[in-house]
Amino acid sequence: MKEVNVEDVIDSLCSPESYSTVFHDTKHEMPMPSIDVLVEIVESLRKILFPGYYAHSDVRPKHMRYYMGANIDKIHRLLTEQIKRGFCFECGEDENITILQCNQKAKNLAAVFISKLPHIRHMLSTDARAAYNGDPAAKSLGETIFCYPSIKALTNYRIAHELYNLGAALIARIISELAHSETGIDIHPGAKIAESCFLDHGTGVVIGETCIIGKGLKLYQGVTLGAKSFSLDESGNPIKGIPRHPIIEDNVTIYAGATILGRITIGKNSVIGGNVWLTQDVPPHSLILSSGIIKRSFENGDGI
Amino acid sequence: MKEVNVEDVIDSLCSPESYSTVFHDTKHEMPMPSIDVLVEIVESLRKILFPGYYAHSDVRPKHMRYYMGANIDKIHRLLTEQIKRGFCFECGEDENITILQCNQKAKNLAAVFISKLPHIRHMLSTDARAAYNGDPAAKSLGETIFCYPSIKALTNYRIAHELYNLGAALIARIISELAHSETGIDIHPGAKIAESCFLDHGTGVVIGETCIIGKGLKLYQGVTLGAKSFSLDESGNPIKGIPRHPIIEDNVTIYAGATILGRITIGKNSVIGGNVWLTQDVPPHSLILSSGIIKRSFENGDGI
Amino acid sequence: MKEVNVEDVIDSLCSPESYSTVFHDTKHEMPMPSIDVLVEIVESLRKILFPGYYAHSDVRPKHMRYYMGANIDKIHRLLTEQIKRGFCFECGEDENITILQCNQKAKNLAAVFISKLPHIRHMLSTDARAAYNGDPAAKSLGETIFCYPSIKALTNYRIAHELYNLGAALIARIISELAHSETGIDIHPGAKIAESCFLDHGTGVVIGETCIIGKGLKLYQGVTLGAKSFSLDESGNPIKGIPRHPIIEDNVTIYAGATILGRITIGKNSVIGGNVWLTQDVPPHSLILSSGIIKRSFENGDGI
Amino acid sequence: MKEVNVEDVIDSLCSPESYSTVFHDTKHEMPMPSIDVLVEIVESLRKILFPGYYAHSDVRPKHMRYYMGANIDKIHRLLTEQIKRGFCFECGEDENITILQCNQKAKNLAAVFISKLPHIRHMLSTDARAAYNGDPAAKSLGETIFCYPSIKALTNYRIAHELYNLGAALIARIISELAHSETGIDIHPGAKIAESCFLDHGTGVVIGETCIIGKGLKLYQGVTLGAKSFSLDESGNPIKGIPRHPIIEDNVTIYAGATILGRITIGKNSVIGGNVWLTQDVPPHSLILSSGIIKRSFENGDGI
Amino acid sequence: MKEVNVEDVIDSLCSPESYSTVFHDTKHEMPMPSIDVLVEIVESLRKILFPGYYAHSDVRPKHMRYYMGANIDKIHRLLTEQIKRGFCFECGEDENITILQCNQKAKNLAAVFISKLPHIRHMLSTDARAAYNGDPAAKSLGETIFCYPSIKALTNYRIAHELYNLGAALIARIISELAHSETGIDIHPGAKIAESCFLDHGTGVVIGETCIIGKGLKLYQGVTLGAKSFSLDESGNPIKGIPRHPIIEDNVTIYAGATILGRITIGKNSVIGGNVWLTQDVPPHSLILSSGIIKRSFENGDGI
Amino acid sequence: MKEVNVEDVIDSLCSPESYSTVFHDTKHEMPMPSIDVLVEIVESLRKILFPGYYAHSDVRPKHMRYYMGANIDKIHRLLTEQIKRGFCFECGEDENITILQCNQKAKNLAAVFISKLPHIRHMLSTDARAAYNGDPAAKSLGETIFCYPSIKALTNYRIAHELYNLGAALIARIISELAHSETGIDIHPGAKIAESCFLDHGTGVVIGETCIIGKGLKLYQGVTLGAKSFSLDESGNPIKGIPRHPIIEDNVTIYAGATILGRITIGKNSVIGGNVWLTQDVPPHSLILSSGIIKRSFENGDGI
Repeated sequence: MKEVNVEDVIDSLCSPESYSTVFHDTKHEMPMPSIDVLVEIVESLRKILFPGYYAHSDVRPKHMRYYMGANIDKIHRLLTEQIKRGFCFECGEDENITILQCNQKAKNLAAVFISKLPHIRHMLSTDARAAYNGDPAAKSLGETIFCYPSIKALTNYRIAHELYNLGAALIARIISELAHSETGIDIHPGAKIAESCFLDHGTGVVIGETCIIGKGLKLYQGVTLGAKSFSLDESGNPIKGIPRHPIIEDNVTIYAGATILGRITIGKNSVIGGNVWLTQDVPPHSLILSSGIIKRSFENGDGI
Repeated sequence: MKEVNVEDVIDSLCSPESYSTVFHDTKHEMPMPSIDVLVEIVESLRKILFPGYYAHSDVRPKHMRYYMGANIDKIHRLLTEQIKRGFCFECGEDENITILQCNQKAKNLAAVFISKLPHIRHMLSTDARAAYNGDPAAKSLGETIFCYPSIKALTNYRIAHELYNLGAALIARIISELAHSETGIDIHPGAKIAESCFLDHGTGVVIGETCIIGKGLKLYQGVTLGAKSFSLDESGNPIKGIPRHPIIEDNVTIYAGATILGRITIGKNSVIGGNVWLTQDVPPHSLILSSGIIKRSFENGDGI
Repeated sequence: MKEVNVEDVIDSLCSPESYSTVFHDTKHEMPMPSIDVLVEIVESLRKILFPGYYAHSDVRPKHMRYYMGANIDKIHRLLTEQIKRGFCFECGEDENITILQCNQKAKNLAAVFISKLPHIRHMLSTDARAAYNGDPAAKSLGETIFCYPSIKALTNYRIAHELYNLGAALIARIISELAHSETGIDIHPGAKIAESCFLDHGTGVVIGETCIIGKGLKLYQGVTLGAKSFSLDESGNPIKGIPRHPIIEDNVTIYAGATILGRITIGKNSVIGGNVWLTQDVPPHSLILSSGIIKRSFENGDGI
Repeated sequence: MKEVNVEDVIDSLCSPESYSTVFHDTKHEMPMPSIDVLVEIVESLRKILFPGYYAHSDVRPKHMRYYMGANIDKIHRLLTEQIKRGFCFECGEDENITILQCNQKAKNLAAVFISKLPHIRHMLSTDARAAYNGDPAAKSLGETIFCYPSIKALTNYRIAHELYNLGAALIARIISELAHSETGIDIHPGAKIAESCFLDHGTGVVIGETCIIGKGLKLYQGVTLGAKSFSLDESGNPIKGIPRHPIIEDNVTIYAGATILGRITIGKNSVIGGNVWLTQDVPPHSLILSSGIIKRSFENGDGI
Repeated sequence: MKEVNVEDVIDSLCSPESYSTVFHDTKHEMPMPSIDVLVEIVESLRKILFPGYYAHSDVRPKHMRYYMGANIDKIHRLLTEQIKRGFCFECGEDENITILQCNQKAKNLAAVFISKLPHIRHMLSTDARAAYNGDPAAKSLGETIFCYPSIKALTNYRIAHELYNLGAALIARIISELAHSETGIDIHPGAKIAESCFLDHGTGVVIGETCIIGKGLKLYQGVTLGAKSFSLDESGNPIKGIPRHPIIEDNVTIYAGATILGRITIGKNSVIGGNVWLTQDVPPHSLILSSGIIKRSFENGDGI
Repeated sequence: MKEVNVEDVIDSLCSPESYSTVFHDTKHEMPMPSIDVLVEIVESLRKILFPGYYAHSDVRPKHMRYYMGANIDKIHRLLTEQIKRGFCFECGEDENITILQCNQKAKNLAAVFISKLPHIRHMLSTDARAAYNGDPAAKSLGETIFCYPSIKALTNYRIAHELYNLGAALIARIISELAHSETGIDIHPGAKIAESCFLDHGTGVVIGETCIIGKGLKLYQGVTLGAKSFSLDESGNPIKGIPRHPIIEDNVTIYAGATILGRITIGKNSVIGGNVWLTQDVPPHSLILSSGIIKRSFENGDGI
């Protein structure tokens, strides 16, 4: 075996031609966003959103204000820092913003995010109820909050979605990836999902960036709401930001393994069967099975 | 940008109308089950079930008793506490049990669980052998114990199944969700799975609450053993606890992406091909492909 | 409820007939490979491969040598120990190697592995660019390094593949399982994957041991590149090591849920549609949809 | 070297004659007080007592209530448990108290302790000022709070003293031992120390259980305020609880290494020189040096 | 301010003339003893020596064997490694021992150490009783085990002394320094201390390497049992290993701050007063005060 | 027992009159210096100063540069932040410095500190040799580096002294307090100590802010080099910064418990006996015992 010269290896790894593509050079020597801190932020947000579930003990209404207040103050501080780092990570060489301005901007955005928390909690309340109503195996509403991947994934999604809307796209993506890694459910923070959503089992679910989803979605493992294709610009690169994922109207059920692609619309109260491959619009009250379309005065929840 | 008044946000989050659905108010100020402690319990159980695999060093037969004894004593203590917390979590307002009675009940159940450990280990031994025999890529039986998701998922399942049978449903669900998150394999603790089970790759597998599965199941990634639909009661809520998932007889193989729904029976020695969608009974010795049924004197293991 | 006799349980668990299958008895009292240390090794390798991404702060070119050198020295030490433990884990009773020889062998292999790092980084650079080019949702190349499961899975794969080639099969498998657990992408370290690979979303992807994959693969969630069946030897055990997985030529795209089985060849520039089930060779420039083959002078990237 | 039989060693260590003296057998299977939790309690108390010093960031007056409230709720919970464990540790076999009664008693005592916090903070404010005024090396009052052993030791003492007064003697002793170990200053929680106390350097200081100390004590390293001797009962055991340590009146200074023993009184405004050995009363305004007494209209602070 | 050239600093620190004195170059690339592991060993030994005090819960006699056995097996393994590292640390260039021989030697010594544990526990039982009898402030014998620095220091000393006798001098020293740092009591592991020893308060106590101390020593803070001077060899270096510290016979009491130097003998039942400076033999039954000797039919325990 | 109203307690603790003295209100919302980070800095400095002692393994000369470089880069970054926080902690309301200027100043000072490291290491080399030569119980020079409190205390002192000289007084004090807490040796960072210093046992040693100490000091436990008294200004506050501690010339030995006070000079080669109380100059070559001065042609090292 030829002797390895470790010095040569190090030389090679330190040459600009080796590292140029994969080296991240931030402005202002700002560190990158910290995944560990974002995990801590999400955990603190869970304590706020589901009081009593993640605290150590009896959070009675009379003490609740203290914990809410202290957690929110902490989140404001931590989130401001992470939003700022996210901005620096993507900050172009030619952008003209001082680090103090950037800090102030991040602090303001974090405050706006905090003002969305009551809304986020309301949405998650409807999701928890949807999970309890949607699964005969669920013994209590509390059980769904405590251990259903649907609630975990939607909690991160609803947090990330608000951050995405505020322009903090990178940390929004990281927060949704945390849930993807934990649950196998991949929801892009750009998607719009209305209330009472239930993603049963969830592994392998993909919900793309430009999806628009109505109330009462019920969706099983392995379902893709994806893009059919995407346009390239003159240089052959994909054009970013074009609507390319499905619109799902209210009270739709989609069974395991279905694939729905492109900017199509699934009408309200429809049911899409398992393993269905769908790239065209579907009128309301449809039942779609692998073998074709059966339209009738169909009501979601009847089962197939 | 409008100034955010954090005090108002806190007021809103602390109003009963905001938190009522998502607030868990236990009796006796008992904390909720601890996921961290349940992780510790599962790790200790692995040390007992697979001696030598998770201990730091040479657990020789002559010292084995000490480690078994100390670990079992520890598990008894930790599990008693978690079972009790699980009971309190789901305890109705009108149930008439003191916390001391609840503690004693939990302690007894934990002891009964411990008495099942030799049986659990026996079942896992057969699972490990099935994994080694079932995968040409496995270099040794030890490798399957060490790093196959099949063994991880079945270890948690077989633990959770015994707890589920003893009535500790919530912590059983948490333990199975731990494996779901780690492996992408979602086995409800209520399912009944006989010996020598092998779940290759496993991501996206779902095995529902009322499944009954015979010996020698071999099953690949993305397979669903689910419910076709479920009945609603008069108020429109799903009726809990009705048998609604498949029965799989001995020595069945199910290839990737197959979907088997409803209380149907797959006869022994059958092979279900990849991506098959199946909602009807299958006689023994069948080979089912996407394109139809080919019955013959088929022997499992021949491959397709 | 019958009283449980814990002593009897312990007796039962300590009897050789109970533990013989699941007990690992190493030679030389060598501990088993440590998953925690392998995690640490992978994290240190990420710092080397993507300078600036995982370090705490400004790794400027002038300091880069120090961090590279210190990390490589640390990896050499930790990896040597883990390779050695892996050998001991699988070492047969009749093998004739002293622990000092084994240590020297492990140290040499770890050095050879280190000499592959510039190559691994080069491959990952092309993978990052492929992810950025392949996903309209990606805002920057840095974002793909920071939070795309494709990069996480390929990083572990490319590390594990080099270790597999050097004969350190067990720790290679553990490292690829770490990524499988984190991302839902299961790539066997024995597979051969050329540059510029992008695995979008990724959950449920399986790439088997003997796959050979060309440049520019683009592959979505739930795709299986598997074996159709496997041969048994005279005793009915699977024969290990036979080529049994697909060959994918350059610039192929495979959409979600497709299943490609057996030692077949997918010709260059082909596109395989979602949910396609494929067990036969495909000529170059093919477009395969669920409903049949449409051959034309097809160029990958056009979309379907 | 004779072969060691480890089984025999274990037998020996498990025989009642070996462990009877050193084995602690609690009632109700209650664990012993936890030093780690007591450390956590003291750290939380420091955050309350010195707002801004131990919090992570800007605790502005407008947020202070949240942190105070959340910390006090947490301390109430943790301290209740530790007080209860302390009672169980010392609970005699014949005491007639249920574990629920004991818990309620502990909870009440913890609440009373909390009501003493404003008083404790007031006393520590005077101690901090005394340290700043008493040491020419102190650059700011904040520096003394941040890193003077005097403040650390007095913080633990003033906490422990209140617990001692409430009857929680064991955990009071543990808390004072924590400061002894950290600073070398050993103050028994039974001692009574008035405001504005400064213990410079402090290593080796001993202040006994029945000391009574006035305002403005200034005391250097190695000073003992101890018992001259103690009385034995009829069985030859020391009689517990008899006043046997000095009374120090207001504004006394005691230089390094002085030893003051027995229930004597040091009159106000006196100065005791270094290494003095003192077992008799001293009138006010005295200056005591090794070589004898010099009485004069002496004012503390003149120095010697 | 002159620009600092960090490269030059690194060059300077890496030059042999800079690091030669302070660089430790072990044989066989063996790491140095680990203070963290030695801390862990001492904690495990405490669990064995004081059953019930450091375990999490009810260690009843019927389970005690498991915990003893598991802890002893763990200690044997960890201590073997540390003893071996200690040998390597001090191993001369010319010593002729292979690493395997060294390992076997360390393993044997660790076993012999373990066989001393019943003796060590017996000694500590007498020390705990001496502390309880010797301090009117002690409320229970359990309190002395739980929080008296005397017991902490003597536990480490009695462990370290057995290791010192077995030739593991370096790790013995480290273990005694751990107690020195925690308690301010500095006992050299070479000292010989008989049963029923009590070191009240303890800060500043020094007990030198060649001390020989009888039963029933009672000793207060700041006492030195030291060497008067030491002899130099021809090169002017101190001659190591000559008896140079005091012999203290049975039942001696030594009050705070006393200094006893040189190879002198303090006769049994003597009392040495505080701050006494002593460099000459003292007959039995003496009472020594700063001002001279008062011999009488003196009985230890009468107090002064 | 009167009911405690926790709300009232919180109100009381949040009133400005309660917290004003003990509340630290930094400028720019800058957090206070972090003791945990300063501990990490000191540990990293030890790795640089004593290569091989605190690293995990074989730091051979050929790799030494990497570790030195990486550690120094890390220290530069961490120390800059802590120096800045220290400045903010003490920054007056009227000081006119922006946070960016403050950061730049801190970064420059940290660089200057780094340039002192070769000097600090040289000094510590002489201290280690002095410890080995000065203690017959020391078996090797390495043992003194590994576990002598003298080396620990002097390492922190020599680090803190350079920071003190650079104006970073607060973090210098914290670093010296860390050693005080660990070793019982309290050296003010303002003191000037020349090479080859040995502080045997060390508990209770105090070395004041304005001491000036020559080469070859040998000093035992409980020695004070303190101030006799200090001057008050017109308001009765101590005047800061006046020389008030002893000057010790080269090669002086001071035995246990000696107290040396005031701006006096101890002439070179003198020996001060145990428990001596000294407030006047001493000529060179003196031997001072408790009972008086014996001057002769005395050579340090002869012993007393």
